[in-house]
Amino acid sequence: MRFLTNRRLIWFLTIIGVYLLYDLAFASSGGNGHTGNGGGHESPVLDVLLELIVILLAAKLGGDLFERVKAPAVLGELVIGMVIGNLQLVGIDFFEPFKHNLTLEILAEIGVIILLFEVGLESTVRDMMKVGLVSFMVAIFGVIAPFFLGWGVAVLFLPHESVYVHIFIGATLTATSVGITARVLKDMNKINTREAKIILGAAVIDDIMGLIILAVVTGIISAVSSGMSEGISSGTVLFIILKAVGFIVGAVIIGHWVLPVFFKFGFRLKGKGVLLSFALLVCFLLAYLAGKMGLAPIVGAFAAGLILEEVWFKDYHDRGEHSIEELISPIATFLVPVFFVRMGMLVDLTTFAQIEILGFAAVLTLAAIVGKQACSLAVFDKTTNRIAIGLGMIPRGEVGLIFVGIGSKLILNGHPVISTSTYSAVVIMVIITTLVTPPALIFSMLRGDRKTDHSLSGSQTEG
Amino acid sequence: MRFLTNRRLIWFLTIIGVYLLYDLAFASSGGNGHTGNGGGHESPVLDVLLELIVILLAAKLGGDLFERVKAPAVLGELVIGMVIGNLQLVGIDFFEPFKHNLTLEILAEIGVIILLFEVGLESTVRDMMKVGLVSFMVAIFGVIAPFFLGWGVAVLFLPHESVYVHIFIGATLTATSVGITARVLKDMNKINTREAKIILGAAVIDDIMGLIILAVVTGIISAVSSGMSEGISSGTVLFIILKAVGFIVGAVIIGHWVLPVFFKFGFRLKGKGVLLSFALLVCFLLAYLAGKMGLAPIVGAFAAGLILEEVWFKDYHDRGEHSIEELISPIATFLVPVFFVRMGMLVDLTTFAQIEILGFAAVLTLAAIVGKQACSLAVFDKTTNRIAIGLGMIPRGEVGLIFVGIGSKLILNGHPVISTSTYSAVVIMVIITTLVTPPALIFSMLRGDRKTDHSLSGSQTEG
Repeated sequence: MRFLTNRRLIWFLTIIGVYLLYDLAFASSGGNGHTGNGGGHESPVLDVLLELIVILLAAKLGGDLFERVKAPAVLGELVIGMVIGNLQLVGIDFFEPFKHNLTLEILAEIGVIILLFEVGLESTVRDMMKVGLVSFMVAIFGVIAPFFLGWGVAVLFLPHESVYVHIFIGATLTATSVGITARVLKDMNKINTREAKIILGAAVIDDIMGLIILAVVTGIISAVSSGMSEGISSGTVLFIILKAVGFIVGAVIIGHWVLPVFFKFGFRLKGKGVLLSFALLVCFLLAYLAGKMGLAPIVGAFAAGLILEEVWFKDYHDRGEHSIEELISPIATFLVPVFFVRMGMLVDLTTFAQIEILGFAAVLTLAAIVGKQACSLAVFDKTTNRIAIGLGMIPRGEVGLIFVGIGSKLILNGHPVISTSTYSAVVIMVIITTLVTPPALIFSMLRGDRKTDHSLSGSQTEG
Repeated sequence: MRFLTNRRLIWFLTIIGVYLLYDLAFASSGGNGHTGNGGGHESPVLDVLLELIVILLAAKLGGDLFERVKAPAVLGELVIGMVIGNLQLVGIDFFEPFKHNLTLEILAEIGVIILLFEVGLESTVRDMMKVGLVSFMVAIFGVIAPFFLGWGVAVLFLPHESVYVHIFIGATLTATSVGITARVLKDMNKINTREAKIILGAAVIDDIMGLIILAVVTGIISAVSSGMSEGISSGTVLFIILKAVGFIVGAVIIGHWVLPVFFKFGFRLKGKGVLLSFALLVCFLLAYLAGKMGLAPIVGAFAAGLILEEVWFKDYHDRGEHSIEELISPIATFLVPVFFVRMGMLVDLTTFAQIEILGFAAVLTLAAIVGKQACSLAVFDKTTNRIAIGLGMIPRGEVGLIFVGIGSKLILNGHPVISTSTYSAVVIMVIITTLVTPPALIFSMLRGDRKTDHSLSGSQTEG
């Protein structure tokens, strides 16, 4: 790594070296009685601390490497997690316990709950209303096509799995990753173009649609797995759909009605940190309720972020408190990488050696890319760069990963809905769609510019 | 509660009501198969979410109530924890599982690690050097007297316990709670008086001394409990003292030498949140190393805070990033109350009904109060309000609670060093010393003012 100059490299290795020396020295001296509480029942906290140290360092190094090649940091966290989690293949099994630590798993879950809360905070219900028909249509087309294509691919490659598994795989292809596209458009100074606004609006809407599909699918699968064996009536499906949609709509309506008063009440409370604590309360409460209803907790966290409106917190800001986004951000910095690095760790690289999984991954990726091109069909306006919109919707990221994470824990007929090999295939799909988008989008936007330049004799350059 | 006007009360109860209704509704419907993942193996995350919801809400309400009567918020968190944790006495055992959840315990531990890191951040090594001889002497006197008084009281009331238990109880009386005294002096506009400076300097120093004593005592106890049965040579004690002092001094020296480069390296990394992640890395790494050496992890976290100097982060601030204190603060808001509410929950109120425990608590409290009056002996300057200094050093708080928390998990000869009844006695001591200080300190400072007014015809007023 070029950016590690000699001197810095030496220092850095010194730190790591001192750390390892200490660790070895006291691990061994623990045996002869000098450090009694090193090994025994006291260690759960130390185990988690060690895991957090490794994850925080790995996340920042991985994120840095990927940002340097213009890929999103989250991919770096995922890939470095894959490396760490598969070091056992070369005989290093130091990191194996990380995969099975329950507390780390719960920290990762809280991390993704915080992440979806943050994503929800970025948009309000009012924004949703304003995005306009084009974004909405783009989102609809961009959800339906990949969903059914993914379903079809799953039927083709996993014919013996139940229909619910096929639907679940279809669902993992629906949600566009807003962050990656937004970042590319921002870097190109194109964030205020009509194309950018349509893509961003549609990405937010298809996030919500994806979450509703996830809510419905997980609801159906848990209903099937518990109790009613294999068959499930259309009445039950309707009930679950109503429950999922009802939860989000209910959260929005009840929240809009109750939360301003809740935060006004909080404003009267003495003591520090009330705003953040109350925001976390709303987030955790809705996540908990969603979970209790058989939906994914992240659905509740997203709904919580969506309904919180900055205008309710004017009193807090007036007395000098930070905004909720600013307050949540450090907690996200701490916990979100735990989720993604751990996701990477759970990928089993040996599955990549199996040719049929690579084939499945390739076709799934194709379905993901082709499916989103349906978006361009929703744009009738000729002056808009329709190709760019289709391309901008390609990247799948956090939400797809979160879906397979949930699927790998849902049990149906005694085995997980998302098997290890499907998990690997989806991770490959996420990585490829994300890596493919920036160059394709840049190319298309610049070609669009040149066309416009040609017809209008405009002055925008760069090639 | 006066501040809950009718309308607000109704709204607030509505939220709680809706929540409980949902909970009940879906807990029961879980049985007939509609919500499959409500109850089974999926629930660890939901359990923790529910616990965090209860703790966050309880902490803010408890903190508010205590701040209204001018008591510190942390006491409110402790007391409301005691209430929740003992509701089983009136037949409500809903909260019992909270006490035994390992993840919640680890979150509490991370909370207290973050807290000590924050406390350490408030002072730098350079500040320590500058505080001057008076504060240092005040701290020494204020550590030695309560330590031996506490030891003596423990011998008197627990004659059958080993000498290590007696020493441990002595150690819990050493550390002054900076926060409470600082808050009172600030509220009185006295934070820049000579008395205030001496007290605050001494409180910081006795925190460090307390942590060194804790490090030594826990080191000795774990050495005794593992391996060398009961006897322990003075050579081993010396080794443990050297290890503890060596750890802190070593952390300061190595940190000063290595960390600026570490953060310079971090500055080159692309991606968001590097500063916070690296600060957490240092905190967790030192906490982990301290734990591996048989010291308490908080000793390492405090040392980490102490060695981090704002001047290393100038580059980060110049590009618009927040200070480490600002970045850590939301994480502390989230996790620190988990520690204190949980500490309160673990107090067994039935022990308070035992007259001998109340007697032990009363004498221990007396030792804590009288012991710190030795501080005034260290001040020779006649113009300084010596009585106020002794009074200002009285409150014990976080650190004392942390000590008994650690002691209750250290095992010696098959039972915990801090038994349930000792735990309760120390909690009573912390509560009384904290509640007693503000009025006593205010009285003494105002009397001092009046004296000064009299002799110098000064202009300070307020009565």
